[in-house]
Amino acid sequence: MEFKDATSEEIQEAVNRSWQAFAVFRKTTLRQRADFMRSIAAQLSSDSDRIIHQAMGETNLPELRLRGELTRTIFQLNSYGEAAERGDWLEARIDTANPDKVPAKPDLRKQKVPLGPVVVFGASNFPFAYSTAGGDTACALAAGCPVLVKAHPAHAATSELVAKAILDAAERTGMPEGVFAHIHGIGFEPAKLLVTHPRVKAVGFTGSFAGGKALFDLAAQRPEPIPVFAEMGSINPVFLLPEKLQSSATEVATLYAGSITLSVGQFCTNPGLLIGLAGGDLDRFIEALATAISQVAPAKMLHAGIAKSFHQKRSLALSQADVKEVSLTARLSAMDDRSSALLAAPTIASTSGRAFLANPILHQEVFGPYSLVVGCSSVNEMIEVAQKMEGQLTTTLMASDREVSEHPELIEAIQNICGRVIFNGVPTGVEVCLSMQHGGPFPATTDSRFTSVGADGISRFTRAICFQNWPDALLPAGLQNSNPLGIWRTINNQLTKHPVG
Amino acid sequence: MEFKDATSEEIQEAVNRSWQAFAVFRKTTLRQRADFMRSIAAQLSSDSDRIIHQAMGETNLPELRLRGELTRTIFQLNSYGEAAERGDWLEARIDTANPDKVPAKPDLRKQKVPLGPVVVFGASNFPFAYSTAGGDTACALAAGCPVLVKAHPAHAATSELVAKAILDAAERTGMPEGVFAHIHGIGFEPAKLLVTHPRVKAVGFTGSFAGGKALFDLAAQRPEPIPVFAEMGSINPVFLLPEKLQSSATEVATLYAGSITLSVGQFCTNPGLLIGLAGGDLDRFIEALATAISQVAPAKMLHAGIAKSFHQKRSLALSQADVKEVSLTARLSAMDDRSSALLAAPTIASTSGRAFLANPILHQEVFGPYSLVVGCSSVNEMIEVAQKMEGQLTTTLMASDREVSEHPELIEAIQNICGRVIFNGVPTGVEVCLSMQHGGPFPATTDSRFTSVGADGISRFTRAICFQNWPDALLPAGLQNSNPLGIWRTINNQLTKHPVG
Repeated sequence: MEFKDATSEEIQEAVNRSWQAFAVFRKTTLRQRADFMRSIAAQLSSDSDRIIHQAMGETNLPELRLRGELTRTIFQLNSYGEAAERGDWLEARIDTANPDKVPAKPDLRKQKVPLGPVVVFGASNFPFAYSTAGGDTACALAAGCPVLVKAHPAHAATSELVAKAILDAAERTGMPEGVFAHIHGIGFEPAKLLVTHPRVKAVGFTGSFAGGKALFDLAAQRPEPIPVFAEMGSINPVFLLPEKLQSSATEVATLYAGSITLSVGQFCTNPGLLIGLAGGDLDRFIEALATAISQVAPAKMLHAGIAKSFHQKRSLALSQADVKEVSLTARLSAMDDRSSALLAAPTIASTSGRAFLANPILHQEVFGPYSLVVGCSSVNEMIEVAQKMEGQLTTTLMASDREVSEHPELIEAIQNICGRVIFNGVPTGVEVCLSMQHGGPFPATTDSRFTSVGADGISRFTRAICFQNWPDALLPAGLQNSNPLGIWRTINNQLTKHPVG
Repeated sequence: MEFKDATSEEIQEAVNRSWQAFAVFRKTTLRQRADFMRSIAAQLSSDSDRIIHQAMGETNLPELRLRGELTRTIFQLNSYGEAAERGDWLEARIDTANPDKVPAKPDLRKQKVPLGPVVVFGASNFPFAYSTAGGDTACALAAGCPVLVKAHPAHAATSELVAKAILDAAERTGMPEGVFAHIHGIGFEPAKLLVTHPRVKAVGFTGSFAGGKALFDLAAQRPEPIPVFAEMGSINPVFLLPEKLQSSATEVATLYAGSITLSVGQFCTNPGLLIGLAGGDLDRFIEALATAISQVAPAKMLHAGIAKSFHQKRSLALSQADVKEVSLTARLSAMDDRSSALLAAPTIASTSGRAFLANPILHQEVFGPYSLVVGCSSVNEMIEVAQKMEGQLTTTLMASDREVSEHPELIEAIQNICGRVIFNGVPTGVEVCLSMQHGGPFPATTDSRFTSVGADGISRFTRAICFQNWPDALLPAGLQNSNPLGIWRTINNQLTKHPVG
């Protein structure tokens, strides 16, 4: 299906409608917003067969994976809606007046309010969970912000169906017209028009570094800069300590072969780098990993652009000095024979700690089923690798119980560069819950102070407002004396659900 | 006293020491950080006579004002230290494992950690509360970030004494060398070196729009962009509803004459704009305000640069079409006679709503004792004024009990543009407490999602990290099963102080 690019006038009009909707939507109750989100979830659920069918045609993703992702998306909408209603994200603070203080202390009450219209860019690798009705959209709606989605061209028709479900739910729950808008467009121009529109107040993005950074720069250079929450690349380094490898090289290799090839390696938490001590155990691990990987048939990537980029970056990495491909090349020739540019052969390469430290090209993400094993000469060199790495979404430590307490410097180094640190597991699999942190130091994301998974992501699209000596009846419900929402509030520095006074 | 500008090498060295200190300081307990902050407070208290004496010489601020500000600064250090210890700012979240879920849900725990070295720029108008040991420094130290202060050249010797108190306290409480650094420098070069240094991870600034925006742009253009929390200009509009004016024009005028001239108008919350309905009551208000203002003698501004800027911007505003000066010009000639360039005569001007809406120059801040009264033709025009204004630190509504519930559209408009909204009061006076919001939509500040006053300001200098299946003993204290810090935590979506399990 072909969609016409939105014209400049259509984008202007959509943003203006969104701004008008904001005046109404910001005043909806938490319950109303939660009902709207639950209604979207229900609509996606009842439309699921049609949506999945469309997505299978557009994305090369298998049905099982797509159904899992849609279920996750529905869960997100329901659980962020529930969190919106629970009201912790309002961060309600009340300090009561003290007329005896000199000068007199006024009554001060603060809570979060929505920022305004939010632009969300669909992600190519997650047509549901990080796209049209995905985490950014759910967080923005929970906060009370209207959303404008720029559909990803790689699954525009799927996006259209999901948008339809959102618009149906908006109508059914009495949301203002313009609370959600769906915009098609290929190339940078529609994105630029959206991000630079003065009525747009924040941006959510999941994708490449080049794309995210371009939006960040545009937003920072506006007359009124706005926050961009871009989740970009990450190679998610895994540090393998020697005792762990010695005792379970094969198990770890099997575990990682699965993680590396999951969804043809097209997860932002895909482990692209494995760092261990050079020697017999690491060699055994590499061999087991290569064998396990060779069981996985080359599979189609999401679209031609991603596949082309995978092949280019993979070739570039493999052509570097002291880098050796260790996966079985037979598979590669099979792929070439089929001459399908979309296929990606799972690839393992190896190099030395010294070569890795000297060559920034090896620090770059190869988005797809590719992982580089780095053999270091000492644990100190492993620490140096951790210290020299850029910001990551995740880092992982594979260690025996003894080792984990013996390497404080390594453990500190791996925590300093990431948003989530995993012990004896794999980084793929991003649980949707309040304690999740999906956002790490730059360049993993543009603002490590926020998360894009879990209900804490709501706060990205809010700011605080303080009411001084304001009449109780005119305060937002979250701050009224009687605590009509029944939420947790900090009153005179004490957390409580009690009313004021 | 003259201070030599720090050389590029000295700045490099200071930042590198700060980075080394970070490795130690980030691991200090909340108690240790609070003790350090209390120790700074105690040192400032015992050095106060010497510090106040120095500040009186450098800043033209009277002793009473300076003593009040130093007391506030000491209070901030103590109360943010207390907040650091209370641990709410860690935002500890725990979701326990669920092996029965498919796929199994791991144990996930999240809390805030410090960002890294923070650069704080001293503010010219607050030598204590927003400078060397001021709110930004206190928040950064509470979070576990080393601080590098760029002293404001207008009170460099005062800053030097305050820095000495901080360094003494650091030594006494066993903090790592480099936890605090004090840097002198005039002009933009030292600022640029600091903000662009790769080891610097955040910036705090209070001052002019030009200064704050320049730092924001520098930080956004770094290879690794970093957050800048700049609190810049604000004209703090006050909306006067007619019934209120009719009943108490003189009282309101007296109240505002005091607020406008407080500290020679050199507060960021100074009310620079008063908007009412044109007519007899507003005329009566203007007259009473002009009379009250004329009782206030011209006073010295902080330094020559600020005074020069006041005179230029005041003249520019007064020269605009349909702008009339209503304060007594006799005072101005008196000032000219004394020919002191530092003196500022309190000034009230008036204009029409139409003229204000048509002329962006009248929306600009005139930093000093200046306020423009805008006479609108209708409440709708007052709403239009509110809707057309840029972001503000505060807005104020002066209204009778009846009026406050009769103008929902105006009330919404004034809330949309500010961080704090005041009812029947004055915006000057920024209480230090958790419910304070000192930060509004751009250009009042660069990031309205955060505050620079109150302990919530700590979160500006933190990011979150999530631990997945991490051994209990190696978790930070805030996340360990037994809750050794005794803090509030959200466990499986419920706030509690209970241990896990």
